[in-house]
Amino acid sequence: MTDRINRQWRLAARPEGLIKDSDFEWREEPVRPLADGEVLVRNIYLSLDPANRGWIREGPSYVEPVGIGDVMRGLTLGVVEESRNERFSPGDLVSGTVGWQDYAISDGSDQRVIDPGPLPLTAFLGLFGIVGLTAYFGLLDIGKPKAGETLVVSGAAGAVGSIVGQIGKIMGCRVVGIAGSDAKCAWLTDDLGFDAAINYKTENVVRTLHKHCPDGIDVIFENVGGDILDAELTWINNYARVAVCGLISGYNAAEKVPGPSAFPMVLIRRARIEGFIVMDYLDRTGEAIAKLSEWYAEGRLKYKVDVYDGLETAPKNINRLFDGSHDGKLIIRVSDEP
Amino acid sequence: MTDRINRQWRLAARPEGLIKDSDFEWREEPVRPLADGEVLVRNIYLSLDPANRGWIREGPSYVEPVGIGDVMRGLTLGVVEESRNERFSPGDLVSGTVGWQDYAISDGSDQRVIDPGPLPLTAFLGLFGIVGLTAYFGLLDIGKPKAGETLVVSGAAGAVGSIVGQIGKIMGCRVVGIAGSDAKCAWLTDDLGFDAAINYKTENVVRTLHKHCPDGIDVIFENVGGDILDAELTWINNYARVAVCGLISGYNAAEKVPGPSAFPMVLIRRARIEGFIVMDYLDRTGEAIAKLSEWYAEGRLKYKVDVYDGLETAPKNINRLFDGSHDGKLIIRVSDEP
Repeated sequence: MTDRINRQWRLAARPEGLIKDSDFEWREEPVRPLADGEVLVRNIYLSLDPANRGWIREGPSYVEPVGIGDVMRGLTLGVVEESRNERFSPGDLVSGTVGWQDYAISDGSDQRVIDPGPLPLTAFLGLFGIVGLTAYFGLLDIGKPKAGETLVVSGAAGAVGSIVGQIGKIMGCRVVGIAGSDAKCAWLTDDLGFDAAINYKTENVVRTLHKHCPDGIDVIFENVGGDILDAELTWINNYARVAVCGLISGYNAAEKVPGPSAFPMVLIRRARIEGFIVMDYLDRTGEAIAKLSEWYAEGRLKYKVDVYDGLETAPKNINRLFDGSHDGKLIIRVSDEP
Repeated sequence: MTDRINRQWRLAARPEGLIKDSDFEWREEPVRPLADGEVLVRNIYLSLDPANRGWIREGPSYVEPVGIGDVMRGLTLGVVEESRNERFSPGDLVSGTVGWQDYAISDGSDQRVIDPGPLPLTAFLGLFGIVGLTAYFGLLDIGKPKAGETLVVSGAAGAVGSIVGQIGKIMGCRVVGIAGSDAKCAWLTDDLGFDAAINYKTENVVRTLHKHCPDGIDVIFENVGGDILDAELTWINNYARVAVCGLISGYNAAEKVPGPSAFPMVLIRRARIEGFIVMDYLDRTGEAIAKLSEWYAEGRLKYKVDVYDGLETAPKNINRLFDGSHDGKLIIRVSDEP
């Protein structure tokens, strides 16, 4: 039925610190024939996300960790190549969690057909994918920004953070972003309309936050944690909300990471710190996509993707998330678009 | 008009670490005559509370710190001795924030007349005072416990914690307390109906929490912070609520205290950590007192007070809050009840 070869990255070891090639095993396997009800998807794009690091860690998480020997988990966009499932036809574009491999066979329950319309396919791993939903629900449902309030976004030039800040502007907030280079900061203020941006690598974050948030901070959208969160908490207002989306500064730590030493500000300012996982909001995807589409059509939301070629580069390129050497939503091109 | 002498403790220095006598200055002053509209209150009981430590610290707080040279702030119960204010008559019992002194003169705006009825006067510094209100609003409004959930209370044998745990039982929760001695733990389980209690000085808190909370932790009422909060966070369920009432473990720290290293659990478990200050709920005092009175009358709430004699002992005795060598709501008897 097929002479397709499925190249895969399987988890070989639980990484300590940054991910190394040797934490994964490269495997090539023939693709087996489909059974009744099954669908064969060819992976086109693979999304690399900070959450991936948590998925291969021991210990508690919101999902089962990827098992040693299993194909590495990852969000994907693909195309149906063969189908023995009436929900799918060859050529359908699908979004799923096929993982770090060329092909996947499933009963289709993990795949959703998408219609990109005039949008580039990669938009469905960015603004109109999990990234956009994360920004939308995290900011609006957890952060609850009100017009005139001050919003601080860490990891602000990242895929999620850059959308969060733009939605904050749409909501009428003063928006201050924290990012890791002058170029990123310039993008935030000049292209995306942030009111100010702080380069945490060259500026004193506490001092510049105080300067750029003259009325204090009402909402924090936290992607980073560690010293950055600590600096932000020093300057929160009464009843501030901290939407915890990610704590990337600690994801590669081998040792226990201390929590924010400004933690008592939670008490002093009657603040709320709340974590969220976008998966809890998937039943409201329609609402979010409608809003994001509307804002995008109005030219009020921009996004960037940063695409690297070749499944074989995934273990190397994922570290770009942690050293900041990417520019937009990090994506691996696994195969060509149809 | 008067030959009364007002003995006072005035703040002399910002304490480093535990409070020392020398952080306060003992002053004796004649009481001046009243002006029109003023009321003279004689202090009977002085409440010593963990929050007092925060009031004499530099840096951000929810109230202005007590100034150097000012009378130390403190909640009090007193009796009106003279009045040129129509709202007060001699003999009225009043609750206020007269501070660490024998007498206070004011326009009465900081005093509330109380009618103790059959209750001992000290109840108005305990169950029917700020302590009870703190337990009531913190647990119910921030913790939002549901029947069948597991509630963990740190500082559980303290004035607030002991009431929180009992309200938790009334709400139908499994309640586990953390306290600092076997005697305190026995009081929690044998007298107050806690399901389990952990002596953090002799037991491994993480391990015993896991044992006593077989279904995980849904609500934390936090009085302590530090390692205790860290241990609790390791075992929270999805959508757990952490009501931050106090972080007493850090109140005497001279250095920055690291935050909870289990902080990422906030994200993993989509938890909410929220600080509160009882002052924000004072407009709902009536509701809380009605409920607390009802439960008390039904025999479902008990409380203890630990009264020490003499205003001069206040600086020494306040440290009992931090070394745990008190047994119930810590109160100084300043003068005799009428």
